[in-house]
Amino acid sequence: MAIAWSEKASSMEVLAMPPSLSPPVILTQDELKKIAAYKAVEFVESGMVLGLGTGSTAKHAVDRIGELLRLGKLKNIVGIPTSKKTQEQALSLGIPLSDLDTHPTVDLAIDGADEVDPHLNLVKGRGGSLLREKMVEGACKKFVCIVDESKLVNHLGGSGLAMPVEIVPFCWKFTARKLQNTLENSGCVAKLRNGAEGEPFVTDNGNYIVDLYLQKNIGDLRVASDAILRIAGVVEHGMFLDMATTVIVAGELGITIKNK
Amino acid sequence: MAIAWSEKASSMEVLAMPPSLSPPVILTQDELKKIAAYKAVEFVESGMVLGLGTGSTAKHAVDRIGELLRLGKLKNIVGIPTSKKTQEQALSLGIPLSDLDTHPTVDLAIDGADEVDPHLNLVKGRGGSLLREKMVEGACKKFVCIVDESKLVNHLGGSGLAMPVEIVPFCWKFTARKLQNTLENSGCVAKLRNGAEGEPFVTDNGNYIVDLYLQKNIGDLRVASDAILRIAGVVEHGMFLDMATTVIVAGELGITIKNK
Repeated sequence: MAIAWSEKASSMEVLAMPPSLSPPVILTQDELKKIAAYKAVEFVESGMVLGLGTGSTAKHAVDRIGELLRLGKLKNIVGIPTSKKTQEQALSLGIPLSDLDTHPTVDLAIDGADEVDPHLNLVKGRGGSLLREKMVEGACKKFVCIVDESKLVNHLGGSGLAMPVEIVPFCWKFTARKLQNTLENSGCVAKLRNGAEGEPFVTDNGNYIVDLYLQKNIGDLRVASDAILRIAGVVEHGMFLDMATTVIVAGELGITIKNK
Repeated sequence: MAIAWSEKASSMEVLAMPPSLSPPVILTQDELKKIAAYKAVEFVESGMVLGLGTGSTAKHAVDRIGELLRLGKLKNIVGIPTSKKTQEQALSLGIPLSDLDTHPTVDLAIDGADEVDPHLNLVKGRGGSLLREKMVEGACKKFVCIVDESKLVNHLGGSGLAMPVEIVPFCWKFTARKLQNTLENSGCVAKLRNGAEGEPFVTDNGNYIVDLYLQKNIGDLRVASDAILRIAGVVEHGMFLDMATTVIVAGELGITIKNK
């Protein structure tokens, strides 16, 4: 884990890896994701309304919740899925589901992230589900974010990978250009996300995704957030500011838990 | 016309009604709309890229542009329609059309409004086209807004009629509740807009409209705008702040032109 990152932890706990997982075993990225996910599920209690995240890390958490329900170790769980994909996964595991219209307050959400900065701000949405994730996780009393250590950055955008923005398909090139201009001081390049066959990727809400690639620090994240949201044609962006209450990071040397 | 409104005009010109339209003839609201629309079309010059508005007032302007093209009094116009409905109307009139992707800069847009405040801020979207209107009119060098005098208000929301917000259909009740809570100091009531047969009204972008009814002044409009846009699930709202460069008001006593 990057030292610069750890230093800014508001509260931090480092847990030793269980003996069976100690070095010299080298863990794959997926094994690290699973370790973080299982740790997060320890926060789940019977009777909770749970936000169920989307993506390769969150999938492990949803699987684990399903397993604990099946074993009778958890009871009376209501899941609020953050995507059609997670909805299908949860249904196949027998997790009872609802939505925000029926359960506007969610006790706990567990989800992954694409980037985590030292203040627990996140980039999310490389899986394309940022809007529903933001709606559900914004309705949570507690939002536990689970990542492997490769997701830690010193500032959002710092991975050099995509910062996703969901936009309406109507005149998407115009909106992409506006996004690029809005963040031009960060050396922003905006690219439409394509699906497997080269057609535009379409979200669960029927929109497109423009991925922003930033060369420099974006500066004040709240200012950037408002500037992006003011662009007509933008539905939502993938910066999750001040939303995660806990981040669980799985790394080769153990699990780190950071609390807000 | 309300005196309070006229007093704050940054620049104002009152034109006498042409003799044939002078009192004692009592004009219908539609005739007033037509007078404002025809006046606005006087701003159009050959070779312009034109934003074509949507609604009962803008319809007259689009008709008039089509007529002038047919008569050869205007040439080389490119229209950017703000809705599918206006696109159909313009096509039927033989107006050449394009979009913002191809023409990202628009010379002039002409469109109606549901409310106009003394600072030329607008409420738009009771016709349901607010998002495309905001995209096109935000790309304009000049935006001429055309209204009959019934649209003048002392503050936005002051008509007691709807302030529309376009939202994603996913968990719309949750988003409507958030909107109502965000503007609770204005005594806001949020209602889903329904279509002719009681089903939810669907915009050209596949979204829903929540109409906000405000009991009190909303206060700082920029603050309210940002607060609304920060709600995940909101696509765009119908407040057009600092966008109109000219407002043409047709009333029983003549035409008033207000410039920014």
